Amino acid sequence: MKALILAAGQGRRQRENGDSKPLIPLLGLSFVERVILTAKKSGIKEFLIVTGYNAGKVRKHLKKGNKLGVKIDYVYNAEWRKGNGVSVLKAKDYIQEPFILLMADHLFDDKILFELQQQTIKDDTCILCVDKNHHKYLDLEDATKVFMEDGQIKDIGKQLNNYNGIDTGIFLCTPVIFDALEQSINGGDESLAAGMKILANRRKMKGFDISDRYWLDVDDGSALKNAKSMLIQQLRKNTDGPISRILNRPISIKISELLLKTKITPNQISLVSFITAFFGALFFYVGEYIFLIIGGILVQLSSIIDGCDGEVARLKLMQTKYGGWFDAVLDRYADAIIIFGMIHGHWILHNNLIIWTIGFIALVGSFLNSYTADKYDAIFKKRRKEVNRWRMGRDIRLFLIFIGALSNQILITLVVLGIISNFEAIKRLITLRFRHA
Amino acid sequence: MKALILAAGQGRRQRENGDSKPLIPLLGLSFVERVILTAKKSGIKEFLIVTGYNAGKVRKHLKKGNKLGVKIDYVYNAEWRKGNGVSVLKAKDYIQEPFILLMADHLFDDKILFELQQQTIKDDTCILCVDKNHHKYLDLEDATKVFMEDGQIKDIGKQLNNYNGIDTGIFLCTPVIFDALEQSINGGDESLAAGMKILANRRKMKGFDISDRYWLDVDDGSALKNAKSMLIQQLRKNTDGPISRILNRPISIKISELLLKTKITPNQISLVSFITAFFGALFFYVGEYIFLIIGGILVQLSSIIDGCDGEVARLKLMQTKYGGWFDAVLDRYADAIIIFGMIHGHWILHNNLIIWTIGFIALVGSFLNSYTADKYDAIFKKRRKEVNRWRMGRDIRLFLIFIGALSNQILITLVVLGIISNFEAIKRLITLRFRHA
Repeated sequence: MKALILAAGQGRRQRENGDSKPLIPLLGLSFVERVILTAKKSGIKEFLIVTGYNAGKVRKHLKKGNKLGVKIDYVYNAEWRKGNGVSVLKAKDYIQEPFILLMADHLFDDKILFELQQQTIKDDTCILCVDKNHHKYLDLEDATKVFMEDGQIKDIGKQLNNYNGIDTGIFLCTPVIFDALEQSINGGDESLAAGMKILANRRKMKGFDISDRYWLDVDDGSALKNAKSMLIQQLRKNTDGPISRILNRPISIKISELLLKTKITPNQISLVSFITAFFGALFFYVGEYIFLIIGGILVQLSSIIDGCDGEVARLKLMQTKYGGWFDAVLDRYADAIIIFGMIHGHWILHNNLIIWTIGFIALVGSFLNSYTADKYDAIFKKRRKEVNRWRMGRDIRLFLIFIGALSNQILITLVVLGIISNFEAIKRLITLRFRHA
Repeated sequence: MKALILAAGQGRRQRENGDSKPLIPLLGLSFVERVILTAKKSGIKEFLIVTGYNAGKVRKHLKKGNKLGVKIDYVYNAEWRKGNGVSVLKAKDYIQEPFILLMADHLFDDKILFELQQQTIKDDTCILCVDKNHHKYLDLEDATKVFMEDGQIKDIGKQLNNYNGIDTGIFLCTPVIFDALEQSINGGDESLAAGMKILANRRKMKGFDISDRYWLDVDDGSALKNAKSMLIQQLRKNTDGPISRILNRPISIKISELLLKTKITPNQISLVSFITAFFGALFFYVGEYIFLIIGGILVQLSSIIDGCDGEVARLKLMQTKYGGWFDAVLDRYADAIIIFGMIHGHWILHNNLIIWTIGFIALVGSFLNSYTADKYDAIFKKRRKEVNRWRMGRDIRLFLIFIGALSNQILITLVVLGIISNFEAIKRLITLRFRHA
């Protein structure tokens, strides 16, 4: 399916500084790039963008879409100062099939478009995504309201008194919208809502409830701040362990914000996290307490950086399966090298051979901890909400090593690590036996 | 969807010894159990079974289906000596919806029913699965032939001269079949094929080509042998490594055939394989050459038994995701314990401390080998045919240990293991980088 994106307007607050709203950068991507990449995640590869204000800048910014892995065509709307219905109508000659209609300055959950595309639609009908829970960031005064009943939009407009939902600016349209817009523009109203109202009067405007998904109309300066905190909120995963939630994530998000201003890729960040762990292990290898302290700090730093690769990937909408896998394999090597460093350091200092056996058990537990978690998640596709918020993970393991190094207790740390990680792995084997066998 | 299974007949060759064909055991299951469990794999949970000859035995054998995790109802056909069309007609009062029709003595690939259920079917139509490649086990003389054109069955019968496909006995029917059968039985032909022919004449009998799937009509003694070799052939996986293919699988299949005669479950077999490896490791732990030999043999034996759990599970159609996972986690622990035994045995005999470092590296490689394979398969869902037939896997690793123990070369074995397993893991990281990034 093709998507039509409206990027012709100037934006209320941007008039002063001359910026073009779709081009405002936010956490590594401009708005319009984020809209395109979000749509791409639901399988949309072809885009038609209506330009107007700063049309040249928009075209120069996106070009033909190669950089984003999509195909972009443009249509110019010289009358961009008029209502947004005029912008949509400019696409009339280019679209003969059902299409997705999006605003260049709205952010939204990619699952919305995925679900919207599953809807069946008749030739004479359009579907508007409606939000029935007015979320906290909504500028209610400026929003277009709708009254929806039995899946039909009955009325739509900014000045609606009796409404039960908000127009999210996300549509599944058929070319019938162009006829409706011609009619409403001839009637003197150039807004998209006016065209929609004509369809609503024909009972050909359906509403699709997306109240449980996030979306945001970034229409002014404070909305920009809201958009940022909304995007950052998405980074906290329900699978995050306790150390990750409380300590690592708040710091890694700050680092990611800086990294987003550079060209560093997520895989490069994974590599940096690995190298940091490697140097931590090198300090452990020496064994002296002062080196343990440095090593411990490096290991904990590596654990924090380990969050950044995923954050940058998600914020730039460039997550790949390979990236996740690459990160996971490097993590396993880092785990092994850190434990080896601990064993060696303790051994040459104390000449205590039992440390090899203890370290060996800790390594096995550490691996089996990750191995059972991965296999478990891959096989049972456990829903996120079910995840035990205190489950034994890498964040806890590395934090234990950090504490153990700072307190000069390598032997005890490895004993503890060996016991709790193997315990966790075996616990998973047993509990699942009785829940899913 | 419901399935109707014909289990009323006596079977040509069974007349002599009085057996009931659906109840003949083959590799751990009776025919009719295998048919039911195969259908269950494609989501069918409700069965109606037409009994006749030995009806009581069949009912006693299957009961209400609780053991198989399905719901079974029965209808008795006192006229079971007549044609099989009469048996189908007995179900008339019990079925008002489209249903699957199966023969109790036909074995088939579970994907057939999965695909067949995806077909859309009109009220007045039936679909027959047709095999256009007459496979080597087919008794052509006894088979029902069909002539199929443009997806329609044009003619059907045992004595067809001009045919291009074989009736597999697998149908997607609507209740229209009962009307057709009443008509054909009134006309004097009591066979199911006669009813089908009536629908074919109305152009309401469609053919569904399943030529690339396996199926088998087990109609006599030699077919029984063929069925056995066909089922055993299914056990050889394309992901089998070279040692598995050449050495382990032929032996494990023989063991599985014995195990199928017992009540031992696949998970219990996984445990036996683990315990065998554990004892192998215990012998390694001692270090003396004579113990190495025993340990090596036990390790290789464990590798062979490790194939039996999956074989028994597949032959009894009782594969579970938990079972595969349980086996994988036990394998990782077995790998670790074996390597630990090797390290310790070598160390106490030769007092050579470097063995700990080498063993540590071998353990890491061994784990990463499994970890990358699992993650790789889970993420990239590589098609089976693409799998490298020489890929480094557990079968090779354990065989190397076996050879190393027999030749008293533990140190070299661990060095080799460490190098090739880590090499393989890193190779996967790099090659995938350029193929799927």
